[in-house]
Amino acid sequence: MMPTLTLVKIGGHVLDNPAMCQAFLHDFAGIAGHKILLHGGGKAASSLAARLHIPVNMHEGRRITDEATLDIAVMVYAGLINKQLVAGLQALQCNALGLSGADANAVRAVKRPPGAVDFGFVGDILPGGVNIALLQNLLNSGITPVIAPITHNGHGQLLNTNADTMAAAVAEAMTTAYHTQLIYCFEKKGVLSDIADENQLIPEISTADYQDLKNRHVVSGGMIPKLDNAFSSIQKGVQTVYIGAAGNIKDITAGIRGSATKIIA
Amino acid sequence: MMPTLTLVKIGGHVLDNPAMCQAFLHDFAGIAGHKILLHGGGKAASSLAARLHIPVNMHEGRRITDEATLDIAVMVYAGLINKQLVAGLQALQCNALGLSGADANAVRAVKRPPGAVDFGFVGDILPGGVNIALLQNLLNSGITPVIAPITHNGHGQLLNTNADTMAAAVAEAMTTAYHTQLIYCFEKKGVLSDIADENQLIPEISTADYQDLKNRHVVSGGMIPKLDNAFSSIQKGVQTVYIGAAGNIKDITAGIRGSATKIIA
Repeated sequence: MMPTLTLVKIGGHVLDNPAMCQAFLHDFAGIAGHKILLHGGGKAASSLAARLHIPVNMHEGRRITDEATLDIAVMVYAGLINKQLVAGLQALQCNALGLSGADANAVRAVKRPPGAVDFGFVGDILPGGVNIALLQNLLNSGITPVIAPITHNGHGQLLNTNADTMAAAVAEAMTTAYHTQLIYCFEKKGVLSDIADENQLIPEISTADYQDLKNRHVVSGGMIPKLDNAFSSIQKGVQTVYIGAAGNIKDITAGIRGSATKIIA
Repeated sequence: MMPTLTLVKIGGHVLDNPAMCQAFLHDFAGIAGHKILLHGGGKAASSLAARLHIPVNMHEGRRITDEATLDIAVMVYAGLINKQLVAGLQALQCNALGLSGADANAVRAVKRPPGAVDFGFVGDILPGGVNIALLQNLLNSGITPVIAPITHNGHGQLLNTNADTMAAAVAEAMTTAYHTQLIYCFEKKGVLSDIADENQLIPEISTADYQDLKNRHVVSGGMIPKLDNAFSSIQKGVQTVYIGAAGNIKDITAGIRGSATKIIA
């Protein structure tokens, strides 16, 4: 039987709130077995860019990463946030080790070819780009990798990669060696049938349900790419995918129904 | 027979010069056997602090690390510089992995107790604070650690640590398992008998010579703490210590006399 691997992705809403982040790290450190933490950015990168008067260039809601913006992403994601999370987990006796995609060639990508828009130093993870053997060796040594959303192209160029995509790619790659569960934490309890009411959690969504929810416009906006990612991971062999709140991570990993939205094939 | 481990410390003069840095990485990648790269800061941290209008507080030539300054050190040293060096080495087929002291508890320190002056978030490396087993495991997996001068206290606090001190502490700790050679790279060819003349290299300095050079004021200023560090490492079991130029690293590691100043007991 393959061992279980739990991958948790946290984003800005947790990282920007020190008390919430500390509570989350405590619960994360308590997860039994092999685990990997993947993190995004939060306000720190935007606020640093603003303080440095570096303009934020967006195209249809997506950020364009010029050289100055890439440096900020590397400093904030692979530097400050990654090391603060690692130090926080070490204090909780969780043997965390921070990684960017460049470290030991953990995640290799290619610079997205410019189409109608040049998104700049954005990395699309290569097929086979996740270094499974490295992560497996670290996990077997009792280490918990903490992965920042920075990749490299193998020719010396660091690249900015979407943190949700990074989480999905790592989880999918690890299915060759582990029974993997991937938990996307965000600011809600999960997918809600009424976005204004936290009590209206949808505990489980299948592919068929998802189509129906989209048709009835129950899910829309930013939820769509998140759910697309989640269903794609399920199709690529990730055994369980949850979308839920960082504060419920204990119940989610205990498999308690209604603690998050479970994505099923 | 113990295997050989080469530790190289590079500082700002190399990091601030992209062509020099690239040439150095090429030579470093070519060093046979186990190796560790330790790096300092360079102008990037000071220039970021200036752009963010964070005042530099100094006491008798030593920087006081307040919280904002610590964040900058973590971002620049453990983030930008560390990941650029790692990506650069990966491009040269050197399997580099970046570490701060927090990562896998690589180097543990204590916040320096405030005396007459409170230096702030400065970490003094603990006796036994270097995680020898971790570094040994990484080296045995064919990985080259690239270590940033950031430590942690084991209770969640990151700390700023002098890069020369970090290099000395790691080299000394590794003597239990390796025949270690430590090379401090700086802006000169080595210790010069005439500071204005690069040709007046002193190829070898013993403890007795050192006393004499100090008495005759041949060495002074910033050279004294560097040499004190070097002699201390020799006394603590590091087999060979060199002080030289990054551009001569090939000759230094080949043991060519006159390529740097060799420190001998």
